[in-house]
Amino acid sequence: MQFIRTSDAGFEAAFAAILEDGRDTTTRVDAAVAEIIQAVRSEGDAALLRLTSRFDGWTPGDTIALQVTAAEIDAAITTVEPGLLEALDLAAMRIEAFHRAQMPADLVVPGADGVALGLRWNALDAVGLYVPGGKAAYPSSVLMNAIPARVAGVARLAMVVPTPGGALNPLVLAAARRAGVTEVWRIGGAQAVAALAWGTQSIAPVDRVVGPGNAYVAEAKRQVFGRVGIDSIAGPSEVLILADGNNNPAHVAMDLMAQAEHDEAAQSILITDDAAFAEAVVREVEKALLTLPRRAIAGESWAKHGAVILVRNWEEAVGLTNRLAPEHLQIMTPDPQALFARIRHAGAAFLGRYTPEAIGDYVAGPNHVLPTGRTSRFASGLSVYDFLKRTTWVEADAAGLAAIGPAAVKLAEAEGLGAHAASVAIRL
Amino acid sequence: MQFIRTSDAGFEAAFAAILEDGRDTTTRVDAAVAEIIQAVRSEGDAALLRLTSRFDGWTPGDTIALQVTAAEIDAAITTVEPGLLEALDLAAMRIEAFHRAQMPADLVVPGADGVALGLRWNALDAVGLYVPGGKAAYPSSVLMNAIPARVAGVARLAMVVPTPGGALNPLVLAAARRAGVTEVWRIGGAQAVAALAWGTQSIAPVDRVVGPGNAYVAEAKRQVFGRVGIDSIAGPSEVLILADGNNNPAHVAMDLMAQAEHDEAAQSILITDDAAFAEAVVREVEKALLTLPRRAIAGESWAKHGAVILVRNWEEAVGLTNRLAPEHLQIMTPDPQALFARIRHAGAAFLGRYTPEAIGDYVAGPNHVLPTGRTSRFASGLSVYDFLKRTTWVEADAAGLAAIGPAAVKLAEAEGLGAHAASVAIRL
Repeated sequence: MQFIRTSDAGFEAAFAAILEDGRDTTTRVDAAVAEIIQAVRSEGDAALLRLTSRFDGWTPGDTIALQVTAAEIDAAITTVEPGLLEALDLAAMRIEAFHRAQMPADLVVPGADGVALGLRWNALDAVGLYVPGGKAAYPSSVLMNAIPARVAGVARLAMVVPTPGGALNPLVLAAARRAGVTEVWRIGGAQAVAALAWGTQSIAPVDRVVGPGNAYVAEAKRQVFGRVGIDSIAGPSEVLILADGNNNPAHVAMDLMAQAEHDEAAQSILITDDAAFAEAVVREVEKALLTLPRRAIAGESWAKHGAVILVRNWEEAVGLTNRLAPEHLQIMTPDPQALFARIRHAGAAFLGRYTPEAIGDYVAGPNHVLPTGRTSRFASGLSVYDFLKRTTWVEADAAGLAAIGPAAVKLAEAEGLGAHAASVAIRL
Repeated sequence: MQFIRTSDAGFEAAFAAILEDGRDTTTRVDAAVAEIIQAVRSEGDAALLRLTSRFDGWTPGDTIALQVTAAEIDAAITTVEPGLLEALDLAAMRIEAFHRAQMPADLVVPGADGVALGLRWNALDAVGLYVPGGKAAYPSSVLMNAIPARVAGVARLAMVVPTPGGALNPLVLAAARRAGVTEVWRIGGAQAVAALAWGTQSIAPVDRVVGPGNAYVAEAKRQVFGRVGIDSIAGPSEVLILADGNNNPAHVAMDLMAQAEHDEAAQSILITDDAAFAEAVVREVEKALLTLPRRAIAGESWAKHGAVILVRNWEEAVGLTNRLAPEHLQIMTPDPQALFARIRHAGAAFLGRYTPEAIGDYVAGPNHVLPTGRTSRFASGLSVYDFLKRTTWVEADAAGLAAIGPAAVKLAEAEGLGAHAASVAIRL
């Protein structure tokens, strides 16, 4: 953990180092992934069976098929504690409502001059959702990825989830059912991404693949991009907390740790204008690191990537926040909306003393799939927009074409495109 | 050119071949581009000077700087024919108006339960626009790329354009000025993309790079992706025309050729329900190919990738169109809006007998940067959305957290994330 002050002579260099702390953990697996994709393209299901047997340690056969049946999902859900299903349902309802509120309207510009214009939104036909297996299987991520797709109007939503040793995660299946997933396939890795992009005898191809995964999954998404759409490839998670001295240091410390416990490469940063408060938070972090179940991971993240920045005023904090462009931003000051109004770059913001970021991970309603690694400068969190696309249209009558056609002819001629010019001129 | 009928026994195989006709002309230039990017990252301006001298055949020096000055742009514009400037201005006004109409509104969900939610749109700070040099320099593309960025609110818009032999294109500069470009740099190739993404001593880095370019530019965009955002990498252009027998075959033939003249890899397809009309169009194409200035290119495109498909009814045409998911779609039937309502996948549509696609390339208003190669199944044309990003926010009070917090604690515990659970529980 670094403790730096904007009043320090070396501040700019230290802050620049934080900005460039890529925390990149990518392994190069291009060739292995290319081979897997080729196998699935040429052999289809046979390759899926072979690769699943090899990587997941179980063999699909007559008794367990590649596709998880509705009866299997029903049976799994009965094993989930009812209170947990209620929590999942509350989360799903709230996520659904917030994403429904985002749905854009079509645009029609009637055009008094004989040229009507418009823009129409359509949902994608089919989407593939990658869900990691084993310990990285987060039911909340199933909701966050699947619900926006269904709200957007995607009819077919095929989920793939590896089942190492054949074991299914009942809460993941419950989330899939609640979120409206239409198919669940017991496959994972690059082979699952290839199957979604290219299709096999059993699995129909989709138009876009979303969802988090390991290095193989990320590389497979890169390689199928163009054939299908993909979501952005998420890096390690991060939080930036702006907090004044009137906060409970234990609360802020736990918020920092909630981020740090995700991953050794995660990053938690506190910006405050109160030196004594900063020190109190650091002490509370140390205390928390004695007892937290994931203290090994959180401790390493805090030690390697954590930072506390002491500013002279909130003006400075705004500037640093816009340079950091954090994935998650908590603002715990007396008027958080006023400060937030001046932030141009952040994936998601959590305002006030009663809005820990973790509330947004599960139940608040906005999406928790967010741009990491300073990419909120140009990228956004997952939303209904990821599952919609636009078609613009133009409808001119003879008068409309007469009004604007000559300018098109002139420009086409200047660009040396004779048939373009002629296709307009011939109608004038 | 292929002439196929849905009533033919071999239709499905022939149509599948059209769908898989990738027309991919990509050259592998990964290693060369990686080297160029590395040179610009480590040497900055010095690398730009050296590479410009090597690839563009002129050496930036004391008399000609890397940056094009306002005075140079003024001087260039005086050489452009006034009628052409007027055409450019009409195009710019219409493009601006249509993109302004697309601007989305912020979302606020007050939340009677103590949890307010929202979504805010912000423009990117800085965008780089690549403009090809020489004969591929299209002023219309400058308008189509730059205007949406300015309408979105992007403050800094840095254009790069190679000047082979040192020559500037006055109409491109006029378009840049009209569209609100804030800087023009006399550089191109992978080195220009690298300079925009990483910055040099002279050029400040941007947040997103857009615009068409050759294989080196496309590969450079791929390699800087993540550091900055990029637009999609366009493939060869295509048009699908749905036309009944009441159209003038010469008009339809010229529309097919307007697409074909772009590139030998371009694709023009006609779907009609009238065999005699189909044959008439083919004859008109042959006639046009005798006189068009770009007949060599258009002829090769038509011979290799052109197709005429005879359908039994418009129902069939709708199904084929959705499978083709064309970049450009012309519908020339008595009620084009009715047919268009059933099309789910197309980049841009041109409705009626007086709306040749070329009108959309220049002056109609919608963008001409569109998804190619069937990617309109999941992608959209360029718009203000490409230059905006979203930040969601949550603001809970104590009552709000009390209402939804317990569900978050339950889900965090089920996912094994103790600090997430504690960060909420500690405030309850």
